[in-house]
Amino acid sequence: MKTKRIDKREEGIGVVEPQYYTIDSLMLESGEKLGQVTLAYETYGALNENKTNAVMVLHALSGDAHAAGLDTERKNPGWWDSMIGPGRAFDTDKYFVISSNVIGGCKGSTGPSSVNPATGRHYALDFPIVTINDMVDAQKRLIDHMGIDKLLTAAGGSMGGMLALSWLVRYPDRIRSAIPIATAIKHGPQQIAFNEVGRQAIMADPHWNSGNYYGGPPPAKGLAVARMIGHITYMSDLSMEEKFGRQRKNGNEPFKFTADYEVEGYLRYRGDSFVKRFDANSYLYITKAMDNFDATELRPLQDSLQGQKTKVLVIAFKSDWLYPAYQSKEIVKACKRSGIETTYCEVDSTYGHDAFLLEVEEETHLISHFLKKVFHEYETA
Amino acid sequence: MKTKRIDKREEGIGVVEPQYYTIDSLMLESGEKLGQVTLAYETYGALNENKTNAVMVLHALSGDAHAAGLDTERKNPGWWDSMIGPGRAFDTDKYFVISSNVIGGCKGSTGPSSVNPATGRHYALDFPIVTINDMVDAQKRLIDHMGIDKLLTAAGGSMGGMLALSWLVRYPDRIRSAIPIATAIKHGPQQIAFNEVGRQAIMADPHWNSGNYYGGPPPAKGLAVARMIGHITYMSDLSMEEKFGRQRKNGNEPFKFTADYEVEGYLRYRGDSFVKRFDANSYLYITKAMDNFDATELRPLQDSLQGQKTKVLVIAFKSDWLYPAYQSKEIVKACKRSGIETTYCEVDSTYGHDAFLLEVEEETHLISHFLKKVFHEYETA
Repeated sequence: MKTKRIDKREEGIGVVEPQYYTIDSLMLESGEKLGQVTLAYETYGALNENKTNAVMVLHALSGDAHAAGLDTERKNPGWWDSMIGPGRAFDTDKYFVISSNVIGGCKGSTGPSSVNPATGRHYALDFPIVTINDMVDAQKRLIDHMGIDKLLTAAGGSMGGMLALSWLVRYPDRIRSAIPIATAIKHGPQQIAFNEVGRQAIMADPHWNSGNYYGGPPPAKGLAVARMIGHITYMSDLSMEEKFGRQRKNGNEPFKFTADYEVEGYLRYRGDSFVKRFDANSYLYITKAMDNFDATELRPLQDSLQGQKTKVLVIAFKSDWLYPAYQSKEIVKACKRSGIETTYCEVDSTYGHDAFLLEVEEETHLISHFLKKVFHEYETA
Repeated sequence: MKTKRIDKREEGIGVVEPQYYTIDSLMLESGEKLGQVTLAYETYGALNENKTNAVMVLHALSGDAHAAGLDTERKNPGWWDSMIGPGRAFDTDKYFVISSNVIGGCKGSTGPSSVNPATGRHYALDFPIVTINDMVDAQKRLIDHMGIDKLLTAAGGSMGGMLALSWLVRYPDRIRSAIPIATAIKHGPQQIAFNEVGRQAIMADPHWNSGNYYGGPPPAKGLAVARMIGHITYMSDLSMEEKFGRQRKNGNEPFKFTADYEVEGYLRYRGDSFVKRFDANSYLYITKAMDNFDATELRPLQDSLQGQKTKVLVIAFKSDWLYPAYQSKEIVKACKRSGIETTYCEVDSTYGHDAFLLEVEEETHLISHFLKKVFHEYETA
């Protein structure tokens, strides 16, 4: 049995087709109504007859619906492929996993690069400000459509963790548990500041043209700079030291402002490859949604959770300085004070914020046990 | 006596005139010869007859020669005014303080915005790559010119600390001591990465035009983004939290991509005001000099210091995550292993890297005692 399980882990779930669900309109927190909202999503595994085995995984800033398996086009694995599949943390032999691209995004869901049905032109900055809560509202409509009463869990890291917290606060009756990873109840000023500088870099690019660049060249240089800033914050000082040190690219001569050091070449490469797959306006809208998110906006988190039957697993990483562990502890404190069952784990990782994508073994251990328990309780409730 | 001292501290040293010293040429580490090199400098206090009371203060990335007193134009205080003056840490009643703008800079010393005497045009990127050691070589020529055999100390924070380390390694016979503050033996990849993203932001600005923007509009937006990144790294998470929190600028409505939060407004203001006073090409050259600096390039630091009679005072700040205390401890370790007299203080500050400019009381206490001892020993040697 053990051997078979290991085989399955290596196999993964193969090529996955994207799916689309369109709702007529979505009322946003701002009071604006967004018409014709499409959600791109993927599913892995099979929904059981009682529809009690559905799990939603929630992507981060630059993620998309393609969380697992290989995509149809380029055969790329999903962003959490190591965590989703037969025998993996989100075991597709047991669970039905749903992953959707957030609204405001650019990977199939309606966002600023979509065509506004009212005008026939790309939304660009006519796209309304969307919030983390709006994104969750759209996801809720998707599980309504699927006939799923309750998700076993809503799980994600970074912005995905904010989405999980929003599920917890807004739809406690629609989830049995939540797994916020490497995230925060709300951004502090340093987190806002890094996002803001990224936005400024995009808006400083003349190709941005107040957001109206569709059909022309995109603000590639500005978006690349924004992404480079992001990558610095995703790694720890130590993981950069281990990966790059002061290793030079071109021998030992200091050339003028070329990428002398490995770390510079890495950042330039990551910046340049990002612009091929991401829309700059989506970057603006999604980072703004993260900055505006505050799970305590209406009332203290512990008051929101009071009396809920949901269980919470909070995971943080020691070397994550972008979403430091003390922010995860604030979530834990509120959960515990509210009386709901809460598990906290601070993983001793050196990967920095990226750890939520890389610490697969530790996360698999934590999540598979947690989910098993939640599923058992749901089945026997 | 006490009262008088406090009065003097409040008075400062009044308006200071900049001075200039031009040397015919400077041989650079790269092997290139830089012709006609001017150093802008200021001095405070009086040089004693034996020329034994001279101190050199060394500025950081965006600093200049104007370290103390008020400038003639805008009556601005110098960047270390709180530390230099009668009764202050660098007591101008006792010491003769010298501060010069580094070569490669843009505040009076020869740099990429200077006119190349060979062509009659601005150097721009024809300006050669300069190093921290080259900057110190030019400063050494200045004290040669002043007839100063030995400096009492070479002191500075951040890049100023690198300059102090370079003095220590290259000219141990010309200094009695060094005070490297909030600095490092060499940049790690995270420090290089932040500088590199700043450079990328400048070079992404079409006004940069491969460095040829003199006479036209400068790459203001790119330079502003670079400066914003810098400012985030100069503050601690906690000091940002205390200064800004999630305070909003424009009431409670989330406007599209304006500066919603105080921290965003602050960064935009700091970015925009920087471009009025700094040259983008100098930003490229000086950050590159910092990234290329390595006090262990030729041999381990402890070997360079072995047998020296210099004393070293190393200061670090607990919340400084750009130049973390462990980097200062590496300096201390090398100094101690070499056998030279070394004092280390890790100040319990929340200001982050900015602390070297702000923790005046603590630094005054440390530096005034250290200098008094060094001066006494020099006088009685």
